[in-house]
Amino acid sequence: MTEGRLMRSMLLDFYGELLTEKQRECFDLHYNEDLSLSEIAEQSGISRQGVWDNIRRAEAALESIEEKTGLIRRFSENRSELEGLQHRAERLMELSRGEAKELAESIVRDIERIKTRG
Amino acid sequence: MTEGRLMRSMLLDFYGELLTEKQRECFDLHYNEDLSLSEIAEQSGISRQGVWDNIRRAEAALESIEEKTGLIRRFSENRSELEGLQHRAERLMELSRGEAKELAESIVRDIERIKTRG
Repeated sequence: MTEGRLMRSMLLDFYGELLTEKQRECFDLHYNEDLSLSEIAEQSGISRQGVWDNIRRAEAALESIEEKTGLIRRFSENRSELEGLQHRAERLMELSRGEAKELAESIVRDIERIKTRG
Repeated sequence: MTEGRLMRSMLLDFYGELLTEKQRECFDLHYNEDLSLSEIAEQSGISRQGVWDNIRRAEAALESIEEKTGLIRRFSENRSELEGLQHRAERLMELSRGEAKELAESIVRDIERIKTRG
């Protein structure tokens, strides 16, 4: 996944519900499902220009929300710190035995779960 | 801090920048700074009714955004899992020595930092 693609996918995940339904649908079909403007136009019964307007407005709205709130940046910083934690906990697993080893294993497992949820 | 108070403070922290400036100001002064409607009216040069309208609209907007995105709920779940991780990592610190102890200490420290940032 390219960086732009990942960012658009996160924007939709975080803030998609704040768009109009049409905006969300056009944005999702175009960027996540890789449909062309013409294909979306045919499927949704609006003009090709209308599809493009919806995508453009959706993107502008999503970017503006992230610029104001910075919540994706905050989440991403946490996630990259969790990566670091996980590496160290994995090393701890190798070094430990008995109860300590079990604790380290459970920490690795839970960090993975938190990262996956986002 | 009561639950309602904490929630309003988080709503403002997460989504405050999506409000109008007047809405954000009135909401903040009333709920975080504990100013009365009359005091805010005097300070901001709008009517008492105007202050109340701004607070009411701000609260409705903030709650609607959280209802749609669920981002505060997501953050809070992560934070409560991090609490659990931290307790286990503290126990690991007690059980370990040498490199393992240092690793456990650094994990505890970093979890604390992630939690504080939010």
